[in-house]
Amino acid sequence: MNGAQALINTLVDGGVDVCFANPGTSEMHFVAALDTVPRMRGVLTLFEGVATGAADGYARIADRPAAVLLHLGPGLGNGLANLHNARRARVPMVVVVGDHAIHHKKYDAPLESDIDAVAGTVSAWVRRTGAVAQVGADAEAAIAASRSGAQISTLILPADVCWTDGAHPAAGVPAPSAGTPVDIGPVAEVLRSGEPAMILIGGDATRGPGLAAAARVVEATGARWLCETFPTRWERGAGVPAVDRLNYFAEGATAQLDGVKHLVLAGAKSPVSFFAYPGVPSDLVPAGCEVHVLCEQHGAAAALAALADEVAPDTVASVAAASRPELPTGTLTSMTAADVVGALLPEGAIVVDESNTSGVLLPQATAGAPAHDWLTLTGGAIGYGIPAAVGAAVAAPDRRVLCLESDGSAMYTISGLWTQARENLDVTTVIYDNGAYDILRIELQRVGAGSEPGPKALDLLDISRPAMDFVKIAEGMGVPARRATTCEEFADALRAAFDEPGPHLIDAVVPSMLG
Amino acid sequence: MNGAQALINTLVDGGVDVCFANPGTSEMHFVAALDTVPRMRGVLTLFEGVATGAADGYARIADRPAAVLLHLGPGLGNGLANLHNARRARVPMVVVVGDHAIHHKKYDAPLESDIDAVAGTVSAWVRRTGAVAQVGADAEAAIAASRSGAQISTLILPADVCWTDGAHPAAGVPAPSAGTPVDIGPVAEVLRSGEPAMILIGGDATRGPGLAAAARVVEATGARWLCETFPTRWERGAGVPAVDRLNYFAEGATAQLDGVKHLVLAGAKSPVSFFAYPGVPSDLVPAGCEVHVLCEQHGAAAALAALADEVAPDTVASVAAASRPELPTGTLTSMTAADVVGALLPEGAIVVDESNTSGVLLPQATAGAPAHDWLTLTGGAIGYGIPAAVGAAVAAPDRRVLCLESDGSAMYTISGLWTQARENLDVTTVIYDNGAYDILRIELQRVGAGSEPGPKALDLLDISRPAMDFVKIAEGMGVPARRATTCEEFADALRAAFDEPGPHLIDAVVPSMLG
Repeated sequence: MNGAQALINTLVDGGVDVCFANPGTSEMHFVAALDTVPRMRGVLTLFEGVATGAADGYARIADRPAAVLLHLGPGLGNGLANLHNARRARVPMVVVVGDHAIHHKKYDAPLESDIDAVAGTVSAWVRRTGAVAQVGADAEAAIAASRSGAQISTLILPADVCWTDGAHPAAGVPAPSAGTPVDIGPVAEVLRSGEPAMILIGGDATRGPGLAAAARVVEATGARWLCETFPTRWERGAGVPAVDRLNYFAEGATAQLDGVKHLVLAGAKSPVSFFAYPGVPSDLVPAGCEVHVLCEQHGAAAALAALADEVAPDTVASVAAASRPELPTGTLTSMTAADVVGALLPEGAIVVDESNTSGVLLPQATAGAPAHDWLTLTGGAIGYGIPAAVGAAVAAPDRRVLCLESDGSAMYTISGLWTQARENLDVTTVIYDNGAYDILRIELQRVGAGSEPGPKALDLLDISRPAMDFVKIAEGMGVPARRATTCEEFADALRAAFDEPGPHLIDAVVPSMLG
Repeated sequence: MNGAQALINTLVDGGVDVCFANPGTSEMHFVAALDTVPRMRGVLTLFEGVATGAADGYARIADRPAAVLLHLGPGLGNGLANLHNARRARVPMVVVVGDHAIHHKKYDAPLESDIDAVAGTVSAWVRRTGAVAQVGADAEAAIAASRSGAQISTLILPADVCWTDGAHPAAGVPAPSAGTPVDIGPVAEVLRSGEPAMILIGGDATRGPGLAAAARVVEATGARWLCETFPTRWERGAGVPAVDRLNYFAEGATAQLDGVKHLVLAGAKSPVSFFAYPGVPSDLVPAGCEVHVLCEQHGAAAALAALADEVAPDTVASVAAASRPELPTGTLTSMTAADVVGALLPEGAIVVDESNTSGVLLPQATAGAPAHDWLTLTGGAIGYGIPAAVGAAVAAPDRRVLCLESDGSAMYTISGLWTQARENLDVTTVIYDNGAYDILRIELQRVGAGSEPGPKALDLLDISRPAMDFVKIAEGMGVPARRATTCEEFADALRAAFDEPGPHLIDAVVPSMLG
């Protein structure tokens, strides 16, 4: 058995049986070895950022790591932005970066570069396998590190380690150990004090059990609660306790936190402004407010459950009622589009949200839709939506995936549509086609740079020259597509996409928020 | 004057007056400042790899750096693969990476990451501007370092440095100093010895003066010569001394170097295999061959001129005769397509070559075409062609740019077509559409991994499922396109594209080399 075969066997034995790949010459033995391990599914992408984003989306839904296969330093570079998002999402992932054979590295061949330095910026665990005898143990350690900390493990794999015989798969990956129980006493005391308190939930507390526990706590104690701005996986809709998110804009978050004397962090980080602005504080904790850390990102649901049993033993969590907006008619705008989505969202859908400015009304329009998962842009690196939808659909073939995507963000990783077609994934992509980097037109004002923006500045935020035709782009990659300019057309297109297997794209032409 | 204004003023005063940009919130003051400096041209890209590849292509033709504006660590990551190629091309470039405001970094906001570590892997010079008073001097130093070493300078620019007033542009960037003259004596002696010698040229010796000098030397001394496999800018065609390239495949290079007793490196690195293969040496220098370094990449042309004056004072360099292939007819293949290109290549064209396997016959088919420049994939990171064509066309608006692009490679940076349309650049992109990663199908055999490749392995190298429609993809980004399946259609399409201003794409459907 060569190193590549031992690696793949160790991966599938460790529960990692999907590999999103964009291989090159140094990974050819890995590719050849796929045929020797039937349990491993290889999913080809045309760009590495699609592979890493897909592994993120997969982990959020499957609750276990996928593997990613990348080619040398440039392949890792292309995958880096979505690895950044995955790092912030705290999802498990095993990244395999092929490298030159060990004896070849000293020659500084054209593709030689410092893989370790780049991998270190996004990976909690990095190892370079130095000999074929080590590959099984290294792969096992990569999986264990990834699963125990819900983080990225990167294994740098020289080509000769792959092609050399004499490897053995590892015996098996130990199950992640349960976290240490947290001391809920101090927070319970704070909540019983009657002083104005806010619980900010995040991490694994944004799913059913964590939400139910937090809802019981706030109902019993009178505290308020919010969810972090960019949850990894947010369960919501009819039958699920409803929570608002901390506002993206610092002004909004400050208003939400106004008057709070105790801020309890349950899996969320202490709130800070997404960007800095001249003269505006970055730290959003109100003056005089005490911050209490209940728990880290993982174990937040368990900590909240313990807290609920302590302060709200008899309280039953309220849940959102079933309720959908009326189907609107007439001109399609980001406002009316939100209502169409709310009216038609299927039961058990997975929503991948990279709609940015165009999506501001989506949460309220879908609050009473059938229960669904909502995945968000955890790290702020745009280009995550289309790839994450690939991974979510691979993880949950029995669910509909709705990817709500901005036109500007879509173009970073547009080739993910091709992988959706190749794998016949049930993904419906909606492009909010407003022809502008609208968020930047807003930010240009907010940072104080553009009270009177000049024509060159505005031109750099305008992507309508030339207009993109997303129907043609999608069809060119094998995804059926249509354009919608009215609510009726949008509703028809959404219904048709949800009814028919395989991927679809809807080019939803909406006006810019800024006119 | 704020920091952003001082930066842009310093750049244009230092001869850097084009900025390929994909900005975000932390770069909004830079964007706003563009309107205060009319001499700076901002060119928007939809993906950072297009910006960095464009700056590479620009520098190869303009012989001076462009600036690149990137957004934080993820933006740098997206640009990394083409920065890798530019590093290998030894071209000057000034990369500006916007970062969070200095006071904001400690909060570990979602987009926070280790920019410095990633930048260090591709940049010869990295600096983080710590105060607004420093921005002018830092920008000046970035330009000077980039120009003197023909390398990448990366300036990490916190948002508050941009928005704070009190900055001053630097006084002016000093001209790069001339390199130290090399001692040509030892090499002259080797060449006069009569023993079998090979001169391997590279760096700046692959352009007119260097080629002429090297041609004189080999004609006077009986030495042979070759050009490095992936020259940064290779001047060739009728009236230019003709040189073959070192073969990409180690077997071919070994045959070319067989029997050589003295290998003289004139701007080229000592030949090594691009990848390692089991049982095959990486070092391609024949046993018993002595290696003599005449000079580094920069100054190679000057060193060869001095050498020619010493060993070939009265020799006149031979040049390639004007000669074009007959226009072929019938089925389009990569063979016949090469002859069509050779028959129609315009005078003074810039050829950006990322045709990989489909392009193997292009050099001989174009050897006698009117003089032209040939840009190659210096670092091996695919996805450079479409972006480099953007930059070359911006640098030389009076020349035709022909981008010869593989289908697989095209998809990494396909959105560069949109920038070509936006800037109305005279770029003709030919997609060699064979539906496969053909180079990997070859490499799978060569690395010994695939004598009997299985269906999963072959499937990961097959990009014909689904077939991509490059006509639709191009039209979707505003570039007129047509498909060619015969030589006649291809010739018609090329002629039409060369005759009409603005970008065009030709989807050249060719069979896979492997059937």
